Amino acid sequence: MTASVRPTSGVGGESDHVLTAAAIAEAVAGELVGNPETAITAIAPLDRATASDLSFLAAPKYARQLESTNAGVVLIAPELATAPGDVRARVIVARPHEALLGLLPRLYRAPAREAGVSPSAIIGRGARLGSAVRIGPFAVIGDRAVLGDGVTIDAHVTVGPGVEIGADSHLYPTATIYSGAMIGKRVVIHAGARIASDGFGYVFRDGAHLKLPHVGRCIIEDDVEIGANSTIDRGSIDDTVVGAGTKIDNLVHVAHNVRIGRLCLIMAQVGIAGSVHVEDGCTLAGQVGVSGHHTVGAGATLAAQAGVFGDIPAGEVWSGWPARPHKDQLRAQSALFKLSKLMRRIERMLERSEQETGP
Amino acid sequence: MTASVRPTSGVGGESDHVLTAAAIAEAVAGELVGNPETAITAIAPLDRATASDLSFLAAPKYARQLESTNAGVVLIAPELATAPGDVRARVIVARPHEALLGLLPRLYRAPAREAGVSPSAIIGRGARLGSAVRIGPFAVIGDRAVLGDGVTIDAHVTVGPGVEIGADSHLYPTATIYSGAMIGKRVVIHAGARIASDGFGYVFRDGAHLKLPHVGRCIIEDDVEIGANSTIDRGSIDDTVVGAGTKIDNLVHVAHNVRIGRLCLIMAQVGIAGSVHVEDGCTLAGQVGVSGHHTVGAGATLAAQAGVFGDIPAGEVWSGWPARPHKDQLRAQSALFKLSKLMRRIERMLERSEQETGP
Amino acid sequence: MTASVRPTSGVGGESDHVLTAAAIAEAVAGELVGNPETAITAIAPLDRATASDLSFLAAPKYARQLESTNAGVVLIAPELATAPGDVRARVIVARPHEALLGLLPRLYRAPAREAGVSPSAIIGRGARLGSAVRIGPFAVIGDRAVLGDGVTIDAHVTVGPGVEIGADSHLYPTATIYSGAMIGKRVVIHAGARIASDGFGYVFRDGAHLKLPHVGRCIIEDDVEIGANSTIDRGSIDDTVVGAGTKIDNLVHVAHNVRIGRLCLIMAQVGIAGSVHVEDGCTLAGQVGVSGHHTVGAGATLAAQAGVFGDIPAGEVWSGWPARPHKDQLRAQSALFKLSKLMRRIERMLERSEQETGP
Repeated sequence: MTASVRPTSGVGGESDHVLTAAAIAEAVAGELVGNPETAITAIAPLDRATASDLSFLAAPKYARQLESTNAGVVLIAPELATAPGDVRARVIVARPHEALLGLLPRLYRAPAREAGVSPSAIIGRGARLGSAVRIGPFAVIGDRAVLGDGVTIDAHVTVGPGVEIGADSHLYPTATIYSGAMIGKRVVIHAGARIASDGFGYVFRDGAHLKLPHVGRCIIEDDVEIGANSTIDRGSIDDTVVGAGTKIDNLVHVAHNVRIGRLCLIMAQVGIAGSVHVEDGCTLAGQVGVSGHHTVGAGATLAAQAGVFGDIPAGEVWSGWPARPHKDQLRAQSALFKLSKLMRRIERMLERSEQETGP
Repeated sequence: MTASVRPTSGVGGESDHVLTAAAIAEAVAGELVGNPETAITAIAPLDRATASDLSFLAAPKYARQLESTNAGVVLIAPELATAPGDVRARVIVARPHEALLGLLPRLYRAPAREAGVSPSAIIGRGARLGSAVRIGPFAVIGDRAVLGDGVTIDAHVTVGPGVEIGADSHLYPTATIYSGAMIGKRVVIHAGARIASDGFGYVFRDGAHLKLPHVGRCIIEDDVEIGANSTIDRGSIDDTVVGAGTKIDNLVHVAHNVRIGRLCLIMAQVGIAGSVHVEDGCTLAGQVGVSGHHTVGAGATLAAQAGVFGDIPAGEVWSGWPARPHKDQLRAQSALFKLSKLMRRIERMLERSEQETGP
Repeated sequence: MTASVRPTSGVGGESDHVLTAAAIAEAVAGELVGNPETAITAIAPLDRATASDLSFLAAPKYARQLESTNAGVVLIAPELATAPGDVRARVIVARPHEALLGLLPRLYRAPAREAGVSPSAIIGRGARLGSAVRIGPFAVIGDRAVLGDGVTIDAHVTVGPGVEIGADSHLYPTATIYSGAMIGKRVVIHAGARIASDGFGYVFRDGAHLKLPHVGRCIIEDDVEIGANSTIDRGSIDDTVVGAGTKIDNLVHVAHNVRIGRLCLIMAQVGIAGSVHVEDGCTLAGQVGVSGHHTVGAGATLAAQAGVFGDIPAGEVWSGWPARPHKDQLRAQSALFKLSKLMRRIERMLERSEQETGP
C-alpha cells in the first residue's frame, strides 16, 4: 500500500498534474509561509503524506501530527498557524477542508468516459437517446424511455418502459428504475438503488393480504443524489417526490406517497413510512425512522436513531424514542440515570413517609 | 408534469379505458349523486385531479380539498357525503380506498409481457422451463433449476443451480436466488432481493472466525411478496422459512433458520436474527429488531423500532427498547418526562427526609 | 419437501458420501454408544431427521425431541448422554455444534466450478487475470483491474477500473466494486454488496449541497466476508479500511474514512458513520449505530440497537440509546418501570413534604 492517494489510482483516471505551494496559496486565497516552489501531485492525511503530497490541519487534536508529517505542503487553519512542525510550505486558510474542495478537481480528473452505446446494451422500441449519452454493457433501456443529453448509464442498469431521465444524470451499475419514475437533471443514483418499486400496500380481505396496485409516480427532481442500495417506492395513487438538491445516503427506505422537500440531507439507513411529508432543508441523521402520515417541518433536525410518531415543528431538533425535543430528551435520560441510583433511597423514603401519614 | 397519473405512463401499458360515474357507482355498489354520464380515464388525489379523473375523500382532514378540486367523479365516505364542493358526480361508498381497489384494474392494465426467453439469457444444463415463462435479457438460470408455468424472470436475475420456482412467480431485475432456495407459487421478489445467501455463522478457533457451512434451505411459500433489496439467508442446518401469504417490505433482513408464519406483515428495515420464530399473523413495524432464538407469538404486533430480547406473547402489542407491553412502555416514557421535571424537588426532599431520620 | 437436507440439493453439488457412526466417532474424537455400522448421508435437526441422517442434541430444551427422532446417528453433549430416546447410534462429544463443523465438508461438497472466463463477460484493456480464475456470465472487469489466482467472479459483477482483488476471493452475483477498492485474499463478497461507493460528503455553499469528491481508497483486507447488499464507502481523502478476518453481515453500512480492525463481527443492519474507528475484536450486534468520529475500543461489545454518541472503552459492553454501560442501562430501564408504578405515591409524598416545609 502506498501512503497517499495517487491521482492515477484514486479515481481511475490518468494525471500528471503538479501544483506548487504558490499556486495553491493563490487558488485558495491563503497566506503562504515557506518555499513557494514546493510541488505536490496528490492529497493525503498528515500521518500518511509523502513529500509530494498536500495535507491539511484543521483541528487542534491533530496538531501533534504536524511535527512528524512528511507532507510537502500543508493547509492550516489560522489558529494553528504557528503549531510546531518542519514542513516546507504552509498555507494559512480559514477552512482548510473547504479549500481542498477547490483543489481536488485540479489534481484528480474524473475518468474519461467515451460517449456511445455498448453493443451489448439493449435499447427498447421507441426509446429516445439524447446527444453524448453513454450506455454501458448489458444495460437494458425500456420501450419509450427518454434519456436526456449527456446521461450516463452504467453496466447492468435497467430503465423501465416510459421512464424519463434528465440531462447529465448518472446511474451506477445495477441501479433499477421501474416504470413510473421521472428522473430530473444531474441526478446521481448509486449502485443497486431501486427507484419506483411497488409500495407496501395491502388490504386484508377473505383471509389474504390483497395487493394494492401502485400507479402513482416516483419523481426525483434535479440535482438529487441517491446512495447505494437505497429504495424509493412509487406512489400508490398519489406520487412519491424527492425535491431538488436533496441528498440521500446508502440503504435508505422511502415509502409510497412520501414527499421530501428541497435540499434535505437523509443519512444512511433512515426509514420514512408512507405519506410522510419532509419539508425543505431537513436533516435526518442515520437510522432515523418516521412513521406514516406525519410532517417533519422545514429545517428540522432528527438525531440519529430518533423514532418519530407525530409531527415535528419546523426548525427544531428532536431525538430518542419516542422522539422529543432534544434538550428534553437529554434531560430525561440524565434524570433516569440519577434516579436509578437513588431508587433505594426513594423507596425507603416512601415507606417512612407513608408510615407516618398513610399512603 | 401532469396533474394526474395517466394510464399510459402509470404502469407502462397502453389503455383507452373510460368509466362513467354510473358504471363506477354500480361497480362499487355506491350511491350516485350528480351526472351519471361524467366520464373519467384515470385516478388522482383531490388536489391534483382534472375533469377526467376519479378521486376520493375518506377522511375529514381532506374535506376542504373537495371545495377546490377539479375531479370529475369523487368517491366519498358516507359521513362526508354532504361536504361542500362542486363536483359533477359523487359516489357515496363505505370505504372509498377499498372501493378503488376494484376500480384500478379496470383503468390500469399491467403492461403486456410476451412469453419467451430472451436470446441473451443463459439457461443452464438440465433446467426445466414451464409453459409461458418469460425470461428477460441477461438472466442466468442455473443447471437443473425448475421454473413453473407463467414464471416471469426479469433482466439480470440470477437463479442458482437446482432452485425451484413455482408457477406465476415474478422476479424483478437483479434479484439473486442462491442455491438452496425453494420458491412457491405467485411469489413476487422485487429488485435486488437476495434469497438463500449464506447466514452469518462462525466459530472462533485458532485466532480466526471459521465460517460455518450453510447447507439448510430457504423456503419461500406461496403468495409471499419480498421487497427491494431485502435479504433472506438460507438455513445453516435447519431451514429458513417464510410462510404463505406473508408480505415483506424493502431492506428487511431475515437471518438463518428463522421461521416466519403465514400472513405476517414485515415492514421496511426490520431485522430478524437467527432461529427466531415469528408465528402466524404478526405485524412487525419498520426498523424492529428481534434478537436470536426468541418467539413472537401469533398475532402479536411490534411497534416501529422495537428491540426484542425475549419471547412476545401471542396477540399482544409491544414497543420500545428493550421491548415491553406497549401500554407499560407509554406509561414509563410519560413518567420519565414527569420525573425529569421533578428531579430537584425529589433530591431536596430526600435530603430533608434523611436529615430528619438518617438515610 | 423432504425432511432433511440432501447433499445434492443443499449446495448444488453431487455427492454419494456415506459416513458410519464409527467413522463419525473417530472424526470428532467422541464416544460411540450403539451400532457402529449405522450409516448416514446427510444432516438434519432432530425433529426432521430420517434414518439416513446425522443429527445433534446440545441443549436440554431439545432433549424431548430425542425420544421421537428418526435420526440414525446423534451427536450428544456429555451432560445429555443418557437422555431417553431410541436411536441406533449416539456419539458423545463436548461441543456437538463445533463437531459438525468438521463433518460438514465430508458430506457436502462445494459445487464444482470450472475455471475459465464466460464468453459473455467483458474484460477491460490491460486487465490482468491470475491462473484458474472463474468469471461468470455478463461480468464486467474494468481496465487495468488485477485479479489474483483462483478468484471467482459471479454473474453480473462489475469490477471498476484499476481495482485489485487478491487470490481466492469470491464475488457473488451483482456485487459492485467501484474504482478505488483494493480487495485482499480469500475475501467473500455476497450478492449486491457495494464496495468503494462515494461517501456522503457535501459542503453547503451558494444555496446548494456541493459534493465533496471522494478520492480515498476502500481497502478490504484478507479473509473478510461481507454480507448481501451491504455498502462500504470509499474514503474522502483518507481511506476506508476493513481489517483482516473481520466478518460483516447483510445490509450493513460503513461510511467514508471508517477504520475497522481485525477479527470484528459486525451484524446485520449496523450503521457506522464517517471516520469512526472500530478497534480489533469488537462485536457490534444487529442495528447498532455509531455516530461519526468516535472510537470503539478493542474487544468492546455493543448490544443490538445501541446508539453510540461517544467513545466506547475497550473490552466493555454497552447498550441502549444513548449507549451506556450495559449494567447501568439495565438498572436504569428496570428503575424506570418501577418508578412509573410509584409515580402517584411520589407525587403525593412531594406534596406532603413540601406542605410541611416549603419546596
